[in-house]
Amino acid sequence: MRAAIFNGPWAVELGERPDPVIQEPTDAVVRVTLGCVCGSDLWYYRGESPHAAGSIGHEFIGIVEQAGADVRGVHEGDLVVAPFIYSDMSCPHCLNGSTISCPAGGNFGNGVIDGGQGEAVRVPLAGSTLVPVPGSGHPDETLRSLLALSDVMSTGHHVAVMARVKKGDTVAVVGDGAVGLSAVLASRRLGAERVIALSRHADRQKIAREFGATDIIEARGAEANEAVLELTGGIGADAALECVGTAQSIATAAAVARPGSVVGIVGVPHGQVPFTETFFRNIGWRGGPAPARIYIPELLGDVLDGTIDPGRVFDYETDLDHIADAYQAMDERRAIKSLIRIGAV
Amino acid sequence: MRAAIFNGPWAVELGERPDPVIQEPTDAVVRVTLGCVCGSDLWYYRGESPHAAGSIGHEFIGIVEQAGADVRGVHEGDLVVAPFIYSDMSCPHCLNGSTISCPAGGNFGNGVIDGGQGEAVRVPLAGSTLVPVPGSGHPDETLRSLLALSDVMSTGHHVAVMARVKKGDTVAVVGDGAVGLSAVLASRRLGAERVIALSRHADRQKIAREFGATDIIEARGAEANEAVLELTGGIGADAALECVGTAQSIATAAAVARPGSVVGIVGVPHGQVPFTETFFRNIGWRGGPAPARIYIPELLGDVLDGTIDPGRVFDYETDLDHIADAYQAMDERRAIKSLIRIGAV
Repeated sequence: MRAAIFNGPWAVELGERPDPVIQEPTDAVVRVTLGCVCGSDLWYYRGESPHAAGSIGHEFIGIVEQAGADVRGVHEGDLVVAPFIYSDMSCPHCLNGSTISCPAGGNFGNGVIDGGQGEAVRVPLAGSTLVPVPGSGHPDETLRSLLALSDVMSTGHHVAVMARVKKGDTVAVVGDGAVGLSAVLASRRLGAERVIALSRHADRQKIAREFGATDIIEARGAEANEAVLELTGGIGADAALECVGTAQSIATAAAVARPGSVVGIVGVPHGQVPFTETFFRNIGWRGGPAPARIYIPELLGDVLDGTIDPGRVFDYETDLDHIADAYQAMDERRAIKSLIRIGAV
Repeated sequence: MRAAIFNGPWAVELGERPDPVIQEPTDAVVRVTLGCVCGSDLWYYRGESPHAAGSIGHEFIGIVEQAGADVRGVHEGDLVVAPFIYSDMSCPHCLNGSTISCPAGGNFGNGVIDGGQGEAVRVPLAGSTLVPVPGSGHPDETLRSLLALSDVMSTGHHVAVMARVKKGDTVAVVGDGAVGLSAVLASRRLGAERVIALSRHADRQKIAREFGATDIIEARGAEANEAVLELTGGIGADAALECVGTAQSIATAAAVARPGSVVGIVGVPHGQVPFTETFFRNIGWRGGPAPARIYIPELLGDVLDGTIDPGRVFDYETDLDHIADAYQAMDERRAIKSLIRIGAV
């Protein structure tokens, strides 16, 4: 089959991989409809994080082509959303909501296991991993939003849940990438009354507004911190959502969080979290990779009934033949998030 | 009046301070019944943290001698518990439960403002700070437990609340000082089924057991981590409570916390919190100075009806004349926590 192949930094190219087949009775083979490029794929692309040569991509939706004998709840022909990791949903960690720590679980597109940027994927533990989508004939806009549940929207939801966003809250979202924008949408969905988005790109500000941001702050650093504090009467945000992971964005989240609050953090911290400094304001920090499998069923209904449209973060679109363009567009900031159109529904 | 005076490291001595008088109509003067020495006082004593020369001590109960014209809810003759800071309980931070960030608030015993280790204290914002104790003729055991609410038991409760301890949980308490022991008691009070106390001192183990610890681990470091993991079937504790603040205790709390949990932390972090490491297990960190004023009313009832007896952490007792002994006993680990008997009820 045709699939994106990671050949090292700056070299993601269309190549060939073996057609996936059922290896375990709990496997399914999914023919990919839509895939996309994640911000973390970009780290590999830029050589900032290591990645084995081979398969890449961990976000996809598709059609079940074949289901192993022991796969329950997922059937051939089903349209399914794949969370970005597979998990058994029966171990103590999965039952506690931490699918990321499932001992039987693992990653897609890690060089060896099939990635979402390819024509098909062997999905281990398919019955407990894939989420079937009810109905049929979904419009393209819906399919794009379903794809967003695979990672980016689940991650935006996670950061808001970690920071305990609730009805009436004032939320500050640090980061205007696809995750930050999804966090704006998630915060409004959870009832936030005011969402302050820190963004200095017009195209991203536009989506932030569409997703429900009530205030936009273009400044960065100390000036941004002061602007948020001014907007909140000197108190700080009820919830600060860190969606980048750089030292500066972490510092901003710390500065704008009100005493006693919890900073949600889903940007892999590349700077040190200033815990001792925020300790005296009783500010907590909570986050990590999202347990997408836990959230997808809840978010799916809202996508299907049109309540949320997280697929709007995809502002660039191409196909497997042009996979290199999909990466380049994001690397050069011409795209917020690139969608790869791979197969028919 | 007679009061403990901080004259520099290793030099806390009985001395004289001016008799407190009402300066603001919101002040009250409290004649101190019982005071005590805090673990943080010991840092000043050892020269590990700076402290201005003068008054010291921030935990006390006493009798209101005089109340200013604008003091509401607190009257002359009342037995009161003082939280370790004063606050207005009407600002956005106090109303949000973060009394520690009250802009009008402040510390007792900071060199200038009267300390709890003295015969009397001028209490600013007395109506919103002091908590009157209902009833009269309380036995000495009750008074000692009321004194514990001033800081140590409220802090033990705080760390358990921060870590979201709930009914049925398995909790690991790192640290067997007075705060750690109080955290054991608080965890059981909040419904924890199993409380694993990390302690290697027989006297502290005894109190931990009395407070409800179900398991004691004497090891430290990697060996302690393994022991907790073994006790929890390899899963880790539902809640890890960090009650020390050293690099080793922080590392142990990180290692024994189960994925997805929140480490409660009230030991001022002297080592860096390993946030990036725990990020991939979705482990959060939350804590800081306890909002004692928020917790005291809730804990007070349980002290008065005998449900909890946090005063058992006081295993050494002396008077103002022997204030230096109170510090020495704790410094030399002959005492878990020293009580200072100062005035009559």
